Amino acid sequence: MSTATQTTLHTAREGYDRDLRVAVLGVGMMGQDHARRLAQLTKGARLVAVSDVDGARTDAVAAEFGVRALHDPVAAVEDPEVDAVVIATPGFTHEGLVLKALEAGKPTLCEKPLTTSPETSRAIVEAERALGRQLVQVGFMRRFDAEYERLRAVVASQELGRPLFLHCVHRNATTPPNFSSEMLVLDSVVHEVDAARFLLGEEITAITVLRPGRTSNAPEGLQDPQFVLMETESGALVDVEIFVNTTTGYVVRTELVAERGTAQIGLGVGLVQQSRAGWGGGIPADFKERFGAAYDVEFQRWVDAVRSGAGVDGPGVWDGYAAAAVCAAGVESLRTGRRVEVDLGARV
Amino acid sequence: MSTATQTTLHTAREGYDRDLRVAVLGVGMMGQDHARRLAQLTKGARLVAVSDVDGARTDAVAAEFGVRALHDPVAAVEDPEVDAVVIATPGFTHEGLVLKALEAGKPTLCEKPLTTSPETSRAIVEAERALGRQLVQVGFMRRFDAEYERLRAVVASQELGRPLFLHCVHRNATTPPNFSSEMLVLDSVVHEVDAARFLLGEEITAITVLRPGRTSNAPEGLQDPQFVLMETESGALVDVEIFVNTTTGYVVRTELVAERGTAQIGLGVGLVQQSRAGWGGGIPADFKERFGAAYDVEFQRWVDAVRSGAGVDGPGVWDGYAAAAVCAAGVESLRTGRRVEVDLGARV
Amino acid sequence: MSTATQTTLHTAREGYDRDLRVAVLGVGMMGQDHARRLAQLTKGARLVAVSDVDGARTDAVAAEFGVRALHDPVAAVEDPEVDAVVIATPGFTHEGLVLKALEAGKPTLCEKPLTTSPETSRAIVEAERALGRQLVQVGFMRRFDAEYERLRAVVASQELGRPLFLHCVHRNATTPPNFSSEMLVLDSVVHEVDAARFLLGEEITAITVLRPGRTSNAPEGLQDPQFVLMETESGALVDVEIFVNTTTGYVVRTELVAERGTAQIGLGVGLVQQSRAGWGGGIPADFKERFGAAYDVEFQRWVDAVRSGAGVDGPGVWDGYAAAAVCAAGVESLRTGRRVEVDLGARV
Amino acid sequence: MSTATQTTLHTAREGYDRDLRVAVLGVGMMGQDHARRLAQLTKGARLVAVSDVDGARTDAVAAEFGVRALHDPVAAVEDPEVDAVVIATPGFTHEGLVLKALEAGKPTLCEKPLTTSPETSRAIVEAERALGRQLVQVGFMRRFDAEYERLRAVVASQELGRPLFLHCVHRNATTPPNFSSEMLVLDSVVHEVDAARFLLGEEITAITVLRPGRTSNAPEGLQDPQFVLMETESGALVDVEIFVNTTTGYVVRTELVAERGTAQIGLGVGLVQQSRAGWGGGIPADFKERFGAAYDVEFQRWVDAVRSGAGVDGPGVWDGYAAAAVCAAGVESLRTGRRVEVDLGARV
Repeated sequence: MSTATQTTLHTAREGYDRDLRVAVLGVGMMGQDHARRLAQLTKGARLVAVSDVDGARTDAVAAEFGVRALHDPVAAVEDPEVDAVVIATPGFTHEGLVLKALEAGKPTLCEKPLTTSPETSRAIVEAERALGRQLVQVGFMRRFDAEYERLRAVVASQELGRPLFLHCVHRNATTPPNFSSEMLVLDSVVHEVDAARFLLGEEITAITVLRPGRTSNAPEGLQDPQFVLMETESGALVDVEIFVNTTTGYVVRTELVAERGTAQIGLGVGLVQQSRAGWGGGIPADFKERFGAAYDVEFQRWVDAVRSGAGVDGPGVWDGYAAAAVCAAGVESLRTGRRVEVDLGARV
Repeated sequence: MSTATQTTLHTAREGYDRDLRVAVLGVGMMGQDHARRLAQLTKGARLVAVSDVDGARTDAVAAEFGVRALHDPVAAVEDPEVDAVVIATPGFTHEGLVLKALEAGKPTLCEKPLTTSPETSRAIVEAERALGRQLVQVGFMRRFDAEYERLRAVVASQELGRPLFLHCVHRNATTPPNFSSEMLVLDSVVHEVDAARFLLGEEITAITVLRPGRTSNAPEGLQDPQFVLMETESGALVDVEIFVNTTTGYVVRTELVAERGTAQIGLGVGLVQQSRAGWGGGIPADFKERFGAAYDVEFQRWVDAVRSGAGVDGPGVWDGYAAAAVCAAGVESLRTGRRVEVDLGARV
Repeated sequence: MSTATQTTLHTAREGYDRDLRVAVLGVGMMGQDHARRLAQLTKGARLVAVSDVDGARTDAVAAEFGVRALHDPVAAVEDPEVDAVVIATPGFTHEGLVLKALEAGKPTLCEKPLTTSPETSRAIVEAERALGRQLVQVGFMRRFDAEYERLRAVVASQELGRPLFLHCVHRNATTPPNFSSEMLVLDSVVHEVDAARFLLGEEITAITVLRPGRTSNAPEGLQDPQFVLMETESGALVDVEIFVNTTTGYVVRTELVAERGTAQIGLGVGLVQQSRAGWGGGIPADFKERFGAAYDVEFQRWVDAVRSGAGVDGPGVWDGYAAAAVCAAGVESLRTGRRVEVDLGARV
Repeated sequence: MSTATQTTLHTAREGYDRDLRVAVLGVGMMGQDHARRLAQLTKGARLVAVSDVDGARTDAVAAEFGVRALHDPVAAVEDPEVDAVVIATPGFTHEGLVLKALEAGKPTLCEKPLTTSPETSRAIVEAERALGRQLVQVGFMRRFDAEYERLRAVVASQELGRPLFLHCVHRNATTPPNFSSEMLVLDSVVHEVDAARFLLGEEITAITVLRPGRTSNAPEGLQDPQFVLMETESGALVDVEIFVNTTTGYVVRTELVAERGTAQIGLGVGLVQQSRAGWGGGIPADFKERFGAAYDVEFQRWVDAVRSGAGVDGPGVWDGYAAAAVCAAGVESLRTGRRVEVDLGARV
């Protein structure tokens, strides 16, 4: 597509009346996933460049998506044809890249952690504040999970009273090589830290990390599992089982215990509450609630199929015809009370 | 965006290297929802026009989305700046519009039913066949639901052996005015008809509709609930409870009973199997499986926020800083075995 | 125990102020289980005799329980030292034995079926009526299952309105040899027949048995599964999947669909309701509800242990001591806020 | 019943060939429940006496069950017509009564706590040891709960590897008056102490009790909830949420986290495991597993009905007849493929 029509000046402050041109910095597993998301799924975004410390990988991913390979991430941030950046590089590089993005006035979605120390994170808070507007979002994706949103709404509604406990469980099947005891806190518990702050709407005031017996499935020297206790401003207690070599699967579970009931997510059954009335959950009000996501997928796949020239990616006219024939027979059976046979004829 | 660059000739057969220009015909509740989906969510699509028999509604919806209002649906189908159409008009108009779309060579996503009789549906099958390529997709959205896909995969894998039963439940809280006994079959059971064909991969050969005792919550004259029995080519039995004035909520549930086990969806817990090994379901393998959709939402909302000039729609740098501070304290606690207090300083 | 003090005349009409002397007729798998129940568990009953067409089996079972072996079941019914009988012989013998028991005025618990034909069952109804009082109970044990009792209470309370459907599932892993297609109805569906009558409180007015595709795991000639439709006086529809060679396990499940909600049992989670308020179940009110059965078992096992001379069958004083020591340390920790170590000393 | 035949000398060491004569000491709520259990449910036991510090209550309960009222509990322990005692008096009296029972050589079931201090409990351990045989059982009833037994079997089988955590929850709706912060530990957590020892098969080596924010529903001065951490010999960590004014209901839940999977009880769904294979539970193998308890209830209620002269307490011959008639019609339908009507005739 010609980009000639897109040279009109746009800035983050004014917004954009065209697709946002995004560069992804760092295209390891996570960054490649984000690149694919921007290229194929996020409406209103256009992946225009990728950058990675590994030049060959940069070239390969750029070729896969038909975008520019920019070997210098700082140049990518400053590139005039890049409106916004996603930072998915290793954590120790975040401070420099985020500060550069703030300097360039480029909207940034930065994978967690923001930086690797409180001091450098605080410096970014100050820098953005000096700029006078928010440019940097941090990639705590759980805040966008439907169950977390529902649990937060339960807390906010105060229907169960003041929160007393959050019981959290975070389990992975295995860890990557070179995972250290500190990384259980910095890479995994960090999600519970943000989730607790998001769900409870208050800051954490103290933390204790306990070292229970080690699993024999953890690599030599790794303290796995750990048990973390966090206290909040209001006195709520957040306890976290963090166990990253369970050998089983990925389980993230949170139970709110409040003054007049409990609410649990991560069981795979939506939000389950206990209160004076009993235990249970909600029933979808209508088909939009139950099948809304299916409609989204249906439309995306249909448009992709049409754009690719395939025409159809889903039920075709034969399926429509078969359904019409069976339903017509059904109406006849409803009227007569008899069993009605269906003959579709030869498939054309 | 200028459309000047888009006058290059494209056809459905060749595919499109730019956003697909789609018109939505019929903008009642369902059509408006689809218009919003195309305008705001479906990557690669551009909503360019809407059309409805109600002229005022056409104008209003067109204005809301900033697209053209085309009062004649046939003209919308034939419009040279419309690449493809979504048909969400009443069922009795489908035949004419779909035939017109086939004639115009326009890819079409037609809401169910394809048409209101087997004869007219069959005519469309023949017409498309004469054209030599698939242009028409029918809106059976359940095929795009993750649980249906998993259940179909269970059948296809033959791991539980040959299917013997599909027990189906389809419940709505209430019906719209003027809903008739036949419409339970034509509007609701039709989904089970297609789902059974999709899941089992075979045609239905006979149908019986039973009339159990009526609920007192159904409007005068409406036979609600009904119980439907369908037989398939292989001898499997599909039974459907269809009950559309339950007063409770929307419940769609399907249980496959096969020779060596069962698999159930629609319980709100994913797919649950019973087999010789016991009952249960799977555990997500990793965070992509559990939180993939959250990442999708996160990116969409971030891009929307940046394009609108809002900058951020999610956790900001203060959240990143707070997490960094708590985790640093956590690492200290891990090392010392002591409780460590966290002081964030004043919020800036 | 001497029986000399028990020659005082007692009759079923007057009741008994001593243990009831019971004979079990038929000591195959089921009868042996009942004999053990009466000998070891049922308070107020004393197993005094067993009888079986297989003389050697009669002798062996009698010896096991230290009771009399009566080779003629009719003599057992008429024996003056037998107060009441349990009939667990094959169904075709029930008619004769029950009539003999009525004649002898002996209270009888007769395993299902009462008899093998409606005519003979009706004859027993008439005979008991002529007697003027109830002497015969039929062994439909589901009526004594806590979940069935709760589901019946839901129907009786009318809180969900009039019943419209009972969806029933009855599955066995495998069948015994020589199981016939008719026996699926007579031996298995019979439980659903009684359960439907018990739950709904009305009679069944019509029945249809469908023959879906056969599982390849059923023995040659056996129509398995079957699908049964029963209609009741009020117009409710009872559908039953009966499937006895599932290869998996024993599953009995019933879902009531009523005018304003549903209630399901047999999921292994007690009774689960759906209504306008959502889905869910109850929370036990107190420890008696949750652990009442555990107390029953505790007492039975303790009395059995003491009577056998073993003294204790459960936690002993060391367990009491260990708990006291840990709790005392807990109270100290509560007061001081510190971790307190526990030292039990050497185990004595 | 004459007790003349029961003067034969029996001792706890030799066992008893007749019903065990039991006295219940303390007939408050708990003791009355135990008296009822012994009088009406426990096979092989005979309630012969009750005793309570409240003389009027003693007389009333004795009259209710038709047994002796013994106003002096020590005399009750020493009574020659009392074989064994159940102690359900307040905890501070346990030490004296248990020592007296040991002295008298009387088998004793003592409600928890054994005594109120580690020192006095230890003294009882020594006294019983000096006696050379076990006479005292402590009332930790959870050990007799089917779910606890299954969870213990999972640990013992080592199928999931070494235990790392037990996450425990213990919730009551409300507390009795005068409940103190210490009593949360001594009366409630004590059950988790014993359960942890029972499940893990090892001793507890340290305990920490934390004081999170108080619920506003707790009485003035009561520290509710509390959070308890216990460490075991092998390094497993047991954490307990103890919360006794939830306003909702009674919830006791335990989750074992072991090296290769988890197993949870108290959800109301039996034991649920997570392992490499997924999550889930077992399916009953047969009807005995599913309906065994129903048979027990059926027999107890039938014997009670016969002994009282009522004759029948459950389905009668009409129910047997109705089932026979419906099944006969079912067999006809199976053979003919047609719907068959059922006519029972007038109810006699």
